[in-house]
Amino acid sequence: MDVKAYLKEEKKKIDRYLDRILFSDPACRGRALLEAMAYSVKAGGKRLRPILAVTSYRACGGPGGEDIYPAACALELIHTYTLIHDDLPVMDNDDYRRGLPTCHRKFGVRRATLAGVGLLLAAFETLGRSAESLGLSPDARKKVISSVAAATGGGGVVGGQVVDLESEGKEVSEETLNYIHSHKTGALIRVSCTLGGRLARAHEKKLAALDAYGGGIGLAFQIVDDLLDIEGDFKELGKGVGADQARGKATFPGRYGIEQSKRLAFAAVERAKAELARADIDSWEMLAEIADFILTRKS
Amino acid sequence: MDVKAYLKEEKKKIDRYLDRILFSDPACRGRALLEAMAYSVKAGGKRLRPILAVTSYRACGGPGGEDIYPAACALELIHTYTLIHDDLPVMDNDDYRRGLPTCHRKFGVRRATLAGVGLLLAAFETLGRSAESLGLSPDARKKVISSVAAATGGGGVVGGQVVDLESEGKEVSEETLNYIHSHKTGALIRVSCTLGGRLARAHEKKLAALDAYGGGIGLAFQIVDDLLDIEGDFKELGKGVGADQARGKATFPGRYGIEQSKRLAFAAVERAKAELARADIDSWEMLAEIADFILTRKS
Repeated sequence: MDVKAYLKEEKKKIDRYLDRILFSDPACRGRALLEAMAYSVKAGGKRLRPILAVTSYRACGGPGGEDIYPAACALELIHTYTLIHDDLPVMDNDDYRRGLPTCHRKFGVRRATLAGVGLLLAAFETLGRSAESLGLSPDARKKVISSVAAATGGGGVVGGQVVDLESEGKEVSEETLNYIHSHKTGALIRVSCTLGGRLARAHEKKLAALDAYGGGIGLAFQIVDDLLDIEGDFKELGKGVGADQARGKATFPGRYGIEQSKRLAFAAVERAKAELARADIDSWEMLAEIADFILTRKS
Repeated sequence: MDVKAYLKEEKKKIDRYLDRILFSDPACRGRALLEAMAYSVKAGGKRLRPILAVTSYRACGGPGGEDIYPAACALELIHTYTLIHDDLPVMDNDDYRRGLPTCHRKFGVRRATLAGVGLLLAAFETLGRSAESLGLSPDARKKVISSVAAATGGGGVVGGQVVDLESEGKEVSEETLNYIHSHKTGALIRVSCTLGGRLARAHEKKLAALDAYGGGIGLAFQIVDDLLDIEGDFKELGKGVGADQARGKATFPGRYGIEQSKRLAFAAVERAKAELARADIDSWEMLAEIADFILTRKS
């Protein structure tokens, strides 16, 4: 199947499972919160993280059927939490996201703050319930929750956000720029890939390859994001263009220039694909196509 | 052992494990965050939730040793997250907590917001790693993470916070007041008790009794909290007295008056103890003493 058709079809399935989690799952009780949570989840997005989990799961020979989807959707709930909190006035203070008013512009800061945390917790509630149903080894099971929590917390996304916010308006070193992006964006993308592998009961060697693959495409994804912030337009991105620059954010084009940034993204994708090939992953073609697709995305 | 001596001794052990989690555990990587996370965790507190987990674990015949402590400490990390976010300017806007400047007064709103989420994630990382080491049945294991996430999220603490904030300055019904407190305070106390039971592999009947016990002492705890807000003084409480009243918060004395509130708290503790007696919990004496202690606490 063509990668674009694949992404579209998977997005549809994931949206259906997200709906189910939001509207019929005990994880999302609390009507006052649900409206704000659902608003941000349903505001769109490529569903890249759950798609990576599902695709990695299949690439490692995970059994058919749709058992993997709830756990994969947990990653999108976590991703949406990071977007809501990133947009808050005390953080990036963004008014638009994906072409719509941000959660706090729509529901106020209080409810947006709580909706973000509500999504995070719904993700762990969902993960806790679904990890078991996939019949993992005790060792893999133990790692499912703690690896996702680690990728999201102070050693992952949240840690990257702290350094990002504290670096605004400063000249950052190459090391700091890499730290910010490998944590803020990279950690959740990496764990999406390894989660799929773990749920398919892949061995350590394959998990290490999926982790390296996730690291490569996560870096490429962030560089393309930075480039789109400069070269994109509002309609395609759904958020203000040039916002990162105006804010003095640490970006790849800001540090390396546009051409060198493009070369870095290309090299990262090549490395990602080479990792898959080396690790004897059963059927990694679609993961390779997704890696290529990340370089050409327009939104 | 006398209940006060027991609480003091357990608090010491829990503080040691909290230190270990904060300062040597991968769950708390990210130095920039750690300072703010540790500040709030180490600002004190009775460690009631972990103590309830440890005591419930023992009451249900959980094996000796200290394997239970990391999981129990996860509850204190979650509790500290709720305090940090409750104090934020967009929430209750409190300047002092336990006699010290609140996290955002000390580190700024950005870092406090992220430190709260960092603690929440460290809790799930810790839980994910420790649930397995206690050798639970698959069914109990599945419930460990999802029950704690559910008690914290939109159907628990966060759901109660939303309704609380939306009720400020309004006349609230008995039903709403109960909803707020059974969720905002009660849910985490209840799950502390059932978590201890689950980790000791207690059967459903005992878990239901621990849940009801937790509900009773959680209600009593909240009523006493409201009363201390009126009758306590700053030195004992470490926060402004009368702050709830000034803010138009929904409180038990506000709705029922002081004397009737005291009667409600007393009755809730009696019910809690009766539940334990009925359920054939192996050794519930200390849980009963903790319930009584909650009525007499001064801070």
